[in-house]
Order: sequence, then C-alpha cells, then structure tokens
Amino acid sequence: MVDHIKVGVLGSGGKVGQAIVDAVRAADDLEFTVGVDRDDPLSDFVDSGTEVVVDFTHPDVVMGNLEFLIASGIHAVVGTTGFDDERISALTTRLADSPSVGVLVAPNFAIGAVLSMRFAQQAAKYFDSVEVIELHHPQKADAPSGTAYRTARLIAEARTAAGVGPSPDATTTELAGARGADVDGVHVHSVRLAGLVAHQEVLLGTQGETLTIRHDSIDRSSFAPGVLLGVREIGSRPGLTVGLDELLDL
Amino acid sequence: MVDHIKVGVLGSGGKVGQAIVDAVRAADDLEFTVGVDRDDPLSDFVDSGTEVVVDFTHPDVVMGNLEFLIASGIHAVVGTTGFDDERISALTTRLADSPSVGVLVAPNFAIGAVLSMRFAQQAAKYFDSVEVIELHHPQKADAPSGTAYRTARLIAEARTAAGVGPSPDATTTELAGARGADVDGVHVHSVRLAGLVAHQEVLLGTQGETLTIRHDSIDRSSFAPGVLLGVREIGSRPGLTVGLDELLDL
Amino acid sequence: MVDHIKVGVLGSGGKVGQAIVDAVRAADDLEFTVGVDRDDPLSDFVDSGTEVVVDFTHPDVVMGNLEFLIASGIHAVVGTTGFDDERISALTTRLADSPSVGVLVAPNFAIGAVLSMRFAQQAAKYFDSVEVIELHHPQKADAPSGTAYRTARLIAEARTAAGVGPSPDATTTELAGARGADVDGVHVHSVRLAGLVAHQEVLLGTQGETLTIRHDSIDRSSFAPGVLLGVREIGSRPGLTVGLDELLDL
Amino acid sequence: MVDHIKVGVLGSGGKVGQAIVDAVRAADDLEFTVGVDRDDPLSDFVDSGTEVVVDFTHPDVVMGNLEFLIASGIHAVVGTTGFDDERISALTTRLADSPSVGVLVAPNFAIGAVLSMRFAQQAAKYFDSVEVIELHHPQKADAPSGTAYRTARLIAEARTAAGVGPSPDATTTELAGARGADVDGVHVHSVRLAGLVAHQEVLLGTQGETLTIRHDSIDRSSFAPGVLLGVREIGSRPGLTVGLDELLDL
Repeated sequence: MVDHIKVGVLGSGGKVGQAIVDAVRAADDLEFTVGVDRDDPLSDFVDSGTEVVVDFTHPDVVMGNLEFLIASGIHAVVGTTGFDDERISALTTRLADSPSVGVLVAPNFAIGAVLSMRFAQQAAKYFDSVEVIELHHPQKADAPSGTAYRTARLIAEARTAAGVGPSPDATTTELAGARGADVDGVHVHSVRLAGLVAHQEVLLGTQGETLTIRHDSIDRSSFAPGVLLGVREIGSRPGLTVGLDELLDL
Repeated sequence: MVDHIKVGVLGSGGKVGQAIVDAVRAADDLEFTVGVDRDDPLSDFVDSGTEVVVDFTHPDVVMGNLEFLIASGIHAVVGTTGFDDERISALTTRLADSPSVGVLVAPNFAIGAVLSMRFAQQAAKYFDSVEVIELHHPQKADAPSGTAYRTARLIAEARTAAGVGPSPDATTTELAGARGADVDGVHVHSVRLAGLVAHQEVLLGTQGETLTIRHDSIDRSSFAPGVLLGVREIGSRPGLTVGLDELLDL
Repeated sequence: MVDHIKVGVLGSGGKVGQAIVDAVRAADDLEFTVGVDRDDPLSDFVDSGTEVVVDFTHPDVVMGNLEFLIASGIHAVVGTTGFDDERISALTTRLADSPSVGVLVAPNFAIGAVLSMRFAQQAAKYFDSVEVIELHHPQKADAPSGTAYRTARLIAEARTAAGVGPSPDATTTELAGARGADVDGVHVHSVRLAGLVAHQEVLLGTQGETLTIRHDSIDRSSFAPGVLLGVREIGSRPGLTVGLDELLDL
Repeated sequence: MVDHIKVGVLGSGGKVGQAIVDAVRAADDLEFTVGVDRDDPLSDFVDSGTEVVVDFTHPDVVMGNLEFLIASGIHAVVGTTGFDDERISALTTRLADSPSVGVLVAPNFAIGAVLSMRFAQQAAKYFDSVEVIELHHPQKADAPSGTAYRTARLIAEARTAAGVGPSPDATTTELAGARGADVDGVHVHSVRLAGLVAHQEVLLGTQGETLTIRHDSIDRSSFAPGVLLGVREIGSRPGLTVGLDELLDL
C-alpha cells in the first residue's frame, strides 16, 4: 500500500485555491487535509499532520506563511508572485536551518509553458533563425507577454553562449512595427484577438526545415497538473527550488 | 471528343516560361503549340493556330505583345507585372475593337493565395478581431509582403463598408513593434526565418472561437494551376479580366 | 434614432438560454423582453411585444413553440436539434399561412464553423487534394465529429459536381487506420486530446502550395454572435431559412 | 587562428554527396579536401590529409569504406542506411583497435526531426494525452512514415517507463480509421496532400493546455546542417556514436 501525501492549501477561499483543493481531492495518491484562508490559523496544518502546503496567496503574507511552514517542518509549493532576489536569498537562509524541508517557488505552473520555454532554449543554437509569436485575448495590457519576453531572453542567452550570430534578415524596407519587437536580437510578435486565451509559438529555422514549439493554454486550470507535480516531488528535494523546470526530468 | 485548347507561351526561355510549357504539355485538355522568346517572331502564334497565349515576360514588352495578340484575335493570360491604371485603361480601349478577345491580367496566380485573400475579405465583417501574420525566407527585402499589405487593406475596406469598428485592443504597455505594423487599422506581423518560403495566416476571432486561413507556398511552381485555370476560362470571357479571383466561382 | 429589436428567449432557464439572455442584454441594438422556461406561458412573448424569439429548448416541445410563435406573428431563431425532412416540410407549410413571419433553423450557430464549412466547399474543386482533421476533447463519443462528417460530404459533392477526380494517394502499405476514415472519398482524421475543446482543419493542396482553413472553438459561448446575427436578419427574411450560412453575405 | 577541419566526401558524385561538398565549402571553419566516387581510390583521403570523411554511399560498400578509414585514423560521419545490430557490433569491434577514431552513424541528419523526436520523448510523461499527425506528399507509399512510427514508439516507451496510463478516449462510435493507427497505444494519423513535402506534429495535452511540436521539412537539403554538426563534433568523440541526438547538448 502506498502512503498518501497529506496536502493542505493556503488561500483556499480564492478561485485558484479552490481549484487546487479540487485537484488534490481528485488525485489518487494525495489526501487533502485542510484549507486555510485569511482568518484561519496556520496551526491547522500542524494539527492535521499536513506534509505539503500549496500557497497561492499574496506577496504581503507569503513570507510569513513560509516562515511558519519551514519552522514546522512542512514542505511548500508556492505560486504566489513577488519573489525577487532579496526574498529568494532570505528563503535560502531560512531553509538552511531546516535542512529536511523543501520549498518550490515557481512563476509558472503550466507544464506546457515550462517545457516549451526549455525546449526553445535547448534548440536555439542549432538553427540559423528564431522568432517568437505570442497570441492573447484582447484585454491584455502588455505586449509582449511576460512569458514571451522571458522566452526570447533565454533564447538569446543560449545563442550568445554558443557563439551563434544573429538570425539572418535582409529587410531594407519596413512599415514601422512589421518585424516585431526586438528582445536581445530575437524578434517577438504579439497578436491580440477575441476568441483567444494564451498561446505562444517559437519558430526555429535552418536550411530546408523549421521546428515550431507551440503552447496553447485555454483555461486558468492549466496550472493544476504542475502544482500536483510539485507536491509529489518537493518532499524529496530539500532546500529551495526555483522554477518548475528544475523538477522536470529533461 | 473534346477539342484541345491550343496554347502558346511568350517568354518560353525563362524559368517561369519553361514551367508553363511543361504544365501545358502535361494537361490532357491543352495542346502546346509554340514558345516565343526574345528573338522569335510573334507571328509564330498565328502560324501555329494558337488560341491562347500565356505572357510572363517584362513590363517593357508586354503592351506590344498584347497589341499584336488582340489584333490577331488571340486570347491572353498575363502574369507580367507593371499594370497600373494607365495600362489597364489602354488595354480596355484596345479590347473594345476586338470584342471576341479575352485578356486576363493577374498579379498572383497561386490559387491558394487568391482564395485566402478572398475568404479573408468575406469573413472580415463577422469577427470582432482580425490580424495578419506573414512568414517568409530571410532574403526578403520588404516587410510586410505585398500580398499581406493588400490582404490587410481588403479586410479593412470590408470592415469599413460593413460598419464594423476596430479590433479590440487593451494594450497600454508595448515594446516598440510588438503589436506589428498598422495597415488601415489591421495589425500585420512579418516573420523572417531560414527554412521558410512564403506563408500567410489571417486570424479572425470572436467570442469563444477563431477562424484561421493559412496559405503555404513552398515552390515557385505554385502559379501553374492558376495559369492553366486562366487558359481554360479566358476564351469564354471576352474583354479585360483583372485578377484570378474573377474567374473563380465563389 | 434606431429602434431596438425586442427579443425574447425560450429555454431561458438553461445554460445556453442564460448565455443568450446575457448576449441580448449586452447588445446595443437589441432589447431583452422576457425569458420563458418550462412552466411559463408562451403568451408572455405576445404581452411583452416581443418581435423575435430565440428557441434553444428540446425536440419534444420545439414544434409546439413554433406553431404558437408563427400564429402570433413572431419571428424565431431556432437552435434546438431534431429537424428532419418531415419537420422542415411541416414548418414550411405552417409558414405559408403567415407570409410575413421568418424562421431560422440552424444546426450550428458558430460563425467560424459555418464559414469554414462554406469556404472548404468553395475551394474544394480548385485543389488536387483535400483532407479533414478534427480535434476534440477526449470525452467525445463519436469519431469523426458530425461537423467533420458534414464538411467532408460537402467537399465530396463539390468535387463530384466539378468533375474533379479523387485526391492522389500512392499508399500501398498502411498500418490499419493510419490514412483515416473515408467519407465519400475524403479522408477524415479524428484526434482526441486532453486540453482541447473543438477544432477542425480542412487541408487543401495543389502543386507547390496548400490552403488550410482552421476553426477553433474553445467555449460553448461561441454560438452567441451567430444567434445575434440571426436575430438581426430574420425579420427581413420571411419564410423558412435553414442554416446560418444562408444569412451570410458570401 | 583557428585550424580548419579537413573534410572529404565519399559518394561525391551523387546529389546528396554534391550538396555536402557545397555545404563544406561554404562553411568558414571547414576545408574541403577531396571527393571520392565509385572509381576513385580511398587512398586519396590519406594523401590529402583528410581528418573527417562524410559517407553517403550504399549499404554494399559502406562497411569496406569504414574499415579503410578507421585503419587510416580518419573519423567518419555516415548517412548510408542499413546499419542493423550485426553491423553496429562489427563496427564497435573494429573501433576498439583504433581508440582515437570516432564514427557517427545516423539514420536522420535533419536537426529539426531529431530534436522534435527527442522533445516528444521528454515531454510524453507529463501529459494525459499524446497523438501524432504526419503529413506528406501523395507519392509516399507507406503510412505512417518511418519517422512517425519511431516517434510513437519512443513516446510509448517513455510513458510506460514512467507508469503513465493510456491517453483518455471515450470513443464508442467510430467510422473505421477515423481514430488513426495504433502504435503501442499512441494514435498516429497520416495525411497525404499535394503541395506538401514532409511534416510531423506531436500533440500533447493535459488539463487546460496543449503543447505541439511541429517539424516541417520542405527540401532534401535539410540534412546538411546536421552533417556539418557531426563533422565538427566527431573528432572529439572516439568510438561509435549512433544517432545525431547523441551529439546534441540536450
């Protein structure tokens, strides 16, 4: 018989929190213990024997939450945003005192997004050309998307490290904007279209062939499988892990 | 028994001309008569009983060619460029004197390109949003491509005529160029990538759904089926026809 | 000043009905009058001065609903299924007595689906090859989808009518099923994948080029724009109209 | 100053051989020494100080070629087919006596194809569903393609090794062939279309998101960049290397 991992959820009153509670409940190998929301005591996790807590709360409270969890010997999987270098450094220090506890902090739990970024990075140096197209719903305020921007930077870094030159481009006459934005030499195009949600294509090309890595996310629930993966793995990864891709076997 | 259409080729010494000779020879319902190149007399077409001539030559000579063909009662299918309003008007005048002769002048004989432009135009008013992505080999000098530019203008005209407002767009923070070029309110994105030839996507979106019309051309021979279609139809279309789409049954 | 069209909804208690009520309310040129559900009297539509009723109910009650509406001089836009030849014929008879009333019956109100089917039909005869790929969520019980089946039949009819032969296919060694299902000579492939909703691609190819018409529907709300289009048009289309494409200006 | 790698070509009279000669000549860091065809002596490679030989010849002669090259201390990059277990074993034995010599044998030198296969294999276990669509020109005799078949088997192996169950599929009514061929539980669909060359899509899906890895090859020259990569790397890889992916830094 397999022991179930006992999982609690912080921020269980929100939409995301509720989706995670549902996902944990639906998983055969996990057991949902308790949800803690704004007014509930963190000690509920200790009382219920929780082994891993998922935290999708708010930058203002997440550091306090983690301090308590680490001190209590409970692992954490964190989707809350706002982890700058200072916070990462503070977390590392804190974890040094509890060498058996693991914490995963990840900006993106959609496995498809994480994999497509990694594959783009790996493939980047083997192709003469690479460009990125991201496509989103028309309510989005920023262009390009944060993911596309990061993807382009990772691609550019990989190409620089390998000594690959810029993508060939003979454009001499351009209607302003046609060739997209330039992110460290990688062209990035942002489409905004009713009927879309969140999509991204990395196009890589060399003589006679192209490779396209496309990610389509049509639903905010797409973070759930990545969160569960984190829950299953973090118990055997003491210390701080940043980014879901660190848990993937690539 | 079906009578074969007797087809001659002007500019038969060039790459395109030769491809058309081959295509005519391969077609069951057509008969190749004679190829005429720079130093050959146009009278060869008359002597051989040619019914339709395909002209892929040069702007400097095409008007003289057509004058001869029209006077000789021979139909023409013309892929040579440079037909501005003045030339179109001159051709119309000339054809008025030979009411049985038909001339087709078309800037693009790739049926897929012509259809995708027409479909984009027809669909444009039924969707909240529309954008165009064109993708070409990196030796291309202009961005966007002429076809993408024309497609965007046709889309914009169709939307204006139907009283459809601009595509929704909440972008407030843009890295210069990310949202592409603006052609009469339609965003157009130009990708340049090794391994590509000539490709275009029109993306249309409304609540919960998108329609994508994509054309891929991987070979310069893609004009051949359109030329043959013109050859088969022009005999029953006296006067001047501009654009292959006029011959399509849409 | 523009007069608003007064719109009522039958089956307003269901999910689809509610979505239509919301869409009507959100439209500037329409006025929602009343929703009628299982236990409400149809006379509410008369009392409220309703001009057009949208019926997304059940095959068991729809004919009775329409009888009442036609007799009351109210136009109808019907998404309820089950309209076989017999019902269509009965409706036509009924409408003959009320020459000013219009009824639209459509199996599919997603504009993108309707357009892609129509475009596929129009393009079919200009290409050597055509195949259909449909992609759906893995809970779907039938393969291929009804839409793909209908699309393939329309394509086959268009090609037969134009005297176009079968798509070329040199396959001599096939692992059973690899080449898909054969619908009147058109190959149809059905993909079932978690993370998808409802998608279809028609691929058309000839020498050196391909044309792809893709429809993506990610949300059941995608019927709303088509229903509103029907509501706006049906008042000026007396008699029976079958299929949303009849209202499109193609 | 960088020393150029001195590269010779076996089978230099054929189309592929000639393309490789051209590619070597065009590369800044490589120096073409000599081409050897049917009637030329292999000793030309020794006389010219060749360091690496590319062999795209014939199964009947390739083992003799390699015997000579290994004995002469020359590295080899081999695209010739027909390497079964017996030949691989014989090569390994032969190389044991020349510990400084490296030989690369690869069934596919298109980097995009090799990467897409590898990425599909890596991603396979993180998604509920996976299917493969391959699309080729209509002259192809076998369906599915060898590459699609291999890709599906690699995916199936990766999923089995990770204990992932079959892709969900609720199909109860299927028109024969609609759901494609079954390769070790992975559905594979084969499209044959005029205007295509060689294309493949691996579709992976989980809750709310999909990842698509697409490879398009439009030109037989697409092996060249992979061959040059092999030429550059094999000098530092003594012994036998099977498959281009072994040289990729993934």
